[in-house]
Amino acid sequence: MRIVDIIEKKKQGLALSSQEINFWIDGLMDNSVKDYQTSALLMAIVLKGMNVEETSDLAMAMLNSGSIIDLSSIDGVKVDKHSTGGVGDKSTMVLSPLVAANGAKLAKMSGRGLGHTGGTLDKLESIPGYNVSLTSQEFIDQVNDIGLAILGQTEASVPADKTIYALRDVTATVDSLPLIAASIMSKKLASGSDTILLDVKYGDGAFMETKAAAEELARVMIDIGQHLNKNVRAMITNMNEPLGRAIGNALEIKESILTLKNQGPSDLVELCNVSAGIMLNQAGIALSVEEGIKMSEKAMADNSALEKFRQLVIAQGGNGDIVDDLSLLPSSKYVTVLKSKNSGYIQAIEASELGKLAMQLGAGRASAEEDINYAVGLELAVKVADYIEAGQDLITIYHDEDLSDAWIDELYTAYTYSEQAVIKEPIIYKVL
Amino acid sequence: MRIVDIIEKKKQGLALSSQEINFWIDGLMDNSVKDYQTSALLMAIVLKGMNVEETSDLAMAMLNSGSIIDLSSIDGVKVDKHSTGGVGDKSTMVLSPLVAANGAKLAKMSGRGLGHTGGTLDKLESIPGYNVSLTSQEFIDQVNDIGLAILGQTEASVPADKTIYALRDVTATVDSLPLIAASIMSKKLASGSDTILLDVKYGDGAFMETKAAAEELARVMIDIGQHLNKNVRAMITNMNEPLGRAIGNALEIKESILTLKNQGPSDLVELCNVSAGIMLNQAGIALSVEEGIKMSEKAMADNSALEKFRQLVIAQGGNGDIVDDLSLLPSSKYVTVLKSKNSGYIQAIEASELGKLAMQLGAGRASAEEDINYAVGLELAVKVADYIEAGQDLITIYHDEDLSDAWIDELYTAYTYSEQAVIKEPIIYKVL
Repeated sequence: MRIVDIIEKKKQGLALSSQEINFWIDGLMDNSVKDYQTSALLMAIVLKGMNVEETSDLAMAMLNSGSIIDLSSIDGVKVDKHSTGGVGDKSTMVLSPLVAANGAKLAKMSGRGLGHTGGTLDKLESIPGYNVSLTSQEFIDQVNDIGLAILGQTEASVPADKTIYALRDVTATVDSLPLIAASIMSKKLASGSDTILLDVKYGDGAFMETKAAAEELARVMIDIGQHLNKNVRAMITNMNEPLGRAIGNALEIKESILTLKNQGPSDLVELCNVSAGIMLNQAGIALSVEEGIKMSEKAMADNSALEKFRQLVIAQGGNGDIVDDLSLLPSSKYVTVLKSKNSGYIQAIEASELGKLAMQLGAGRASAEEDINYAVGLELAVKVADYIEAGQDLITIYHDEDLSDAWIDELYTAYTYSEQAVIKEPIIYKVL
Repeated sequence: MRIVDIIEKKKQGLALSSQEINFWIDGLMDNSVKDYQTSALLMAIVLKGMNVEETSDLAMAMLNSGSIIDLSSIDGVKVDKHSTGGVGDKSTMVLSPLVAANGAKLAKMSGRGLGHTGGTLDKLESIPGYNVSLTSQEFIDQVNDIGLAILGQTEASVPADKTIYALRDVTATVDSLPLIAASIMSKKLASGSDTILLDVKYGDGAFMETKAAAEELARVMIDIGQHLNKNVRAMITNMNEPLGRAIGNALEIKESILTLKNQGPSDLVELCNVSAGIMLNQAGIALSVEEGIKMSEKAMADNSALEKFRQLVIAQGGNGDIVDDLSLLPSSKYVTVLKSKNSGYIQAIEASELGKLAMQLGAGRASAEEDINYAVGLELAVKVADYIEAGQDLITIYHDEDLSDAWIDELYTAYTYSEQAVIKEPIIYKVL
């Protein structure tokens, strides 16, 4: 077998066999297939596509380049969830305790933020003392003990994915549905859980801009799951405005805690209860999604999820008192409230724009090496479809440096107004 | 400007600007653009194409990565010719003296053979003493003195083309019309001549299999020429059987000399006279192609071209006596004549198959490092459309090792017979 023949085959739009895909990924790992050959193949895949068998084979080949985390010593059904990323997405912090409080086991590996979307690890690290680096034994013990752990991805878990991702980033081969699907699924499968719920976001602040594209990606990932006998479900959710009201690490932890105290924004509450309901159904703990949602709502209402969150923070070395005293979280030097210049119904809030502006405040990174300022960020006074009068509060900015006029002007451009009442899109478009 | 944006643009099927193409090629040369980025871009070009402006810009950018050979100190019009390569193509050895004997100046850079097609340099080196490595001053002096020189390509003439070609070979990105056209034209433009005649071959033994593909390639190269104000013409010629009767280095030199002595095979004679006629017309020496052909035929008939060839051999250190005594050329240990097993009209002779079999005898190289055996090769007793009886001579094999049964069986499969008379395709399909 020769890699040049494999590239030629894909260039002609033919399907690759599992042997050919394994030959490629094995060669990538032992460097007998060169980077310039992989990048040519990646471009051919972007332009010619891959069918579900090929995409499953690629996910499996990448998975086999590393090792699957062995969760067999954790009692019970291990559930997992993955979001394709969005602005203000703090759902992991909320739904994980909702699920764990109902008896499912969640050994969750999360990532850091890059660009306009934040990362769960960064958010958790804004809690004083919270440690995201656990050994395998530590996190297995913790999940057996309190039902959940949220930690950093093991570096070596899917090395082929890491190599390929780095190449895709610099060769304009990121936006390929099979490559995205295989990358996500290889990492999710490597994390060793029994069930997977995918939250595939669409809209301005998401990787997939349209509902159709998000649904197509979700279906390919579900197909991969079926192909590999994994219980995989997916939600298609709205990222045409930020999720909830907070953007920024400590601000999002604060909003997560308030949500667990029944004081959360409605979109975040709905998303987390439905997610938790599906996960509890996948785990066999709830007999239906509806029953699961009820169990989740109960855990939110009776503070059992809040206490589970406190247990999580304490177990991973953080200060559990933040649950009672939000002022223990980092706070910014300055707080500036911007007023609306117009009156009307809010028609759109550009999530990607707000994500970028928060990143510029220091809440996120433009490149992987940058440090993060946990305290800074944005808090939305209004959401899409709300009515606002000129002069009323539009948004609160938490910042450590002076705000430039250009930055403020750009923030205003993220908002569109309508004279007519606006019908808001639901947060959950579809469950697959 | 960022290379990843340029790759993205081509991936979307958009045309690149000359600034973008220059940015790519400059980056390739100073290594700020990595090989894996170039290979991704090459694959995007293969699958999305390039228009004539882009292709011209690429040819120019590659050309500018090196230097154009300065032929200004050669008096008169410098003509050049390029063949896309075929089996048994010894036309350079014949048409160069035909043209030079009529006063045009030919400073011809040639290449070596690879795979089933031979190379002019290898053929010339089968002449005892012939030296293909001349300094710039030596070859300019020689062209001023006798009107022609045939030597090896200067290594550094088009470095970007060399780098890109090496990448294309291992990334399945060879078969792209704009990449082929830009590569050929950058090298031809670098050789500094005033006019260029392209011999674009089609058929089984050629790079372009169909007439249409060959014509498309020719038209793109002519367009590049027009774009750059160069006098470029092209012929589309038949490579559905080997050119002439000889395949193999010394055997082809022998056939070239016999052709200059008016004893050549009709297809080779016609191709060389028409080529020379066009080149003499391009040079302004003949007022029409027809007049040029007559001048060429005269130089063949009156032995002036043969004497020009002798001058060439002597000027480059070779033994000029070979022109009179062909036995001075290397000869093989064994000569085996294969007889036809069937009776009938020869319908097809697979040129690529014969080229490959000759390579296996030692006449060519499978990889660039291999040595060549100048003496071995094939001589066709019959050509397409000839009638042959079973038991009559089919082909003569010049070899140094025993022939295997498998090799002989394969040779027989290169021939197809017909009971009906076969209408032969002309050697020249079109002149553009």
